[in-house]
Amino acid sequence: LIRRNEEELIRWIESRGWPENAFVRRGIGDDCAVCRPAPGHELVVTTDLLVEGRHFLLDTTPAADLGWKIGAANLSDIAAMGARPVAFFLSAAFPAARQDLFAAVMDGLRAILSLHATPLAGGDLSAADHCCFAATVLGEAPAGRALLRSGARPGDGIFVTGSPGFAGAGLRLLAGGWRKTAPDRCADPFGRKRPGEGPEWDCLQKHLRPEPRLAEGLCLRDSGAVTAAIDTSDGIAKDLRQICVRSGAGALLDDARLQALIDGDRVTLADVLGGGEDYELLVTVDPAGEAALLAGFASRPGFPPLHRLGRIVAEHPGEVRLAAATGEVPLPVSGFDHFRP
Amino acid sequence: LIRRNEEELIRWIESRGWPENAFVRRGIGDDCAVCRPAPGHELVVTTDLLVEGRHFLLDTTPAADLGWKIGAANLSDIAAMGARPVAFFLSAAFPAARQDLFAAVMDGLRAILSLHATPLAGGDLSAADHCCFAATVLGEAPAGRALLRSGARPGDGIFVTGSPGFAGAGLRLLAGGWRKTAPDRCADPFGRKRPGEGPEWDCLQKHLRPEPRLAEGLCLRDSGAVTAAIDTSDGIAKDLRQICVRSGAGALLDDARLQALIDGDRVTLADVLGGGEDYELLVTVDPAGEAALLAGFASRPGFPPLHRLGRIVAEHPGEVRLAAATGEVPLPVSGFDHFRP
Repeated sequence: LIRRNEEELIRWIESRGWPENAFVRRGIGDDCAVCRPAPGHELVVTTDLLVEGRHFLLDTTPAADLGWKIGAANLSDIAAMGARPVAFFLSAAFPAARQDLFAAVMDGLRAILSLHATPLAGGDLSAADHCCFAATVLGEAPAGRALLRSGARPGDGIFVTGSPGFAGAGLRLLAGGWRKTAPDRCADPFGRKRPGEGPEWDCLQKHLRPEPRLAEGLCLRDSGAVTAAIDTSDGIAKDLRQICVRSGAGALLDDARLQALIDGDRVTLADVLGGGEDYELLVTVDPAGEAALLAGFASRPGFPPLHRLGRIVAEHPGEVRLAAATGEVPLPVSGFDHFRP
Repeated sequence: LIRRNEEELIRWIESRGWPENAFVRRGIGDDCAVCRPAPGHELVVTTDLLVEGRHFLLDTTPAADLGWKIGAANLSDIAAMGARPVAFFLSAAFPAARQDLFAAVMDGLRAILSLHATPLAGGDLSAADHCCFAATVLGEAPAGRALLRSGARPGDGIFVTGSPGFAGAGLRLLAGGWRKTAPDRCADPFGRKRPGEGPEWDCLQKHLRPEPRLAEGLCLRDSGAVTAAIDTSDGIAKDLRQICVRSGAGALLDDARLQALIDGDRVTLADVLGGGEDYELLVTVDPAGEAALLAGFASRPGFPPLHRLGRIVAEHPGEVRLAAATGEVPLPVSGFDHFRP
């Protein structure tokens, strides 16, 4: 793929075929996309900036996986609001001679956007010495129904979907040299485990091809019992702390519940609490609606488990503590921080 | 300004005070911003990615001017749709030790967003070796009324606002060493010429502190006579060609009209046709509504001139030609292109 100029590159992107919907009236090709919001709905908007060498390494992450991850990470923010994605925008800067890499990124992005029926509505292209991607996603939710970080109340249960810590464990595997060839994975963008593949595959897959919990987010929203939600992009400890800070409450994690999520050397407690890029949903649940929510969630085919982790408390607002047999231990503010000295 | 972590940086941003409106229900602080579209309106959405060394040089562009320009360039895309900006998102990556630079960028951005009553609704922060900024802007227009690039018809007049070419001339001045100190300019974010400042100031100001034509865009839209619109971020030749390509028509520029925009050595024909970052509005106008539009535009206090440049023709679709006394000359596809070898 070598296109001689920006216009040809844009036409190549358009020609790849992307999902369409009634929201995006005009996509790629004008100064702005033109979108038509559904009556009675609100929009949720998330943006993300990923820089080579900081957020991704091209020697461990195949470009198609990178495209998938950019999609997944941003769709996950929409999932955390209990919203439905309606438009995706991708801006990209990359070395002019690396159009092959850009094409693979777009193919990975197209795989996940197709899976979630989300149009590519626009973006911006430029050449640069290093790769850099910026994503914006718009989602829709009925007015006043979007899930926020700020609604947790003392007594609420704390739950997390799926397999927290697996992505962090997968990153360790990758850094240690365990990898699959990119073409294999591209042939199966859904990335299911195939015969003969060991448990490492689950962790690697979680790191390279995370699945945003969009259907789960809608189910949680519709239960009416979720009081606060966030996606676990920075690890449970840091993300739960965000709920605590924004809700003015504390969180008490049950040590035994956390131990149950550990898988020997493969997935450690550090992975569960501090591993990034899991893109699971971390929610607080009103006890009055909890039983119905759990039953409804468990009955949905293909849904992951919903693990109870602990509860929201009135004490130590803004702080997450671990309740063990020997007493309560404040969790350090862990998780990756770009600006910590 | 040294904040110890991302959370403190975000709180610093929030504390600076930004415009508010009814559209942005929840801004900074959740997984997504929550926005409420006005009934009967459509949204227009633009995104932009700016990389240090490609789109800006920090040794010639003071950081506050850079923040202003990021704002202006993106608001200009909203203006080109005849829309009103309702929410701005800025993602930034910069060296962790350069928080001073980031703060100045945010101050410049705040100056222009305040001027146009546009909230900062969210973004994303990370550390990186080089600076990189990604902007997303949402705008609103009555349903079906947004101006597009694709509506130009043979016979339509071609017009441009203000002072095309000035920004390109200003860039030349800057590259040649002519500059003002940044603190002076920051003290007057509106950047009006002050006593004793020569004509160079106009060009420099146009490059460093361009004014998006938002009020002009609304006036042009409301005239009902504008058939296509684009903002001149890449020079008239390239931008007008976009209108021609998307409208399936040709454009014939009047040499004498273009000559009138030239100002000796200061603003050359190359600046007018190929200079970037002017952020003027280039529109095509139905002859039936032209007289009323021109009269209405001229009557608005503070509006720039609206220069006639030529007309849309049925011949040579997708091509811009210059009509001179000696005949028609096709304009080369000029203007900056990241991917041209």
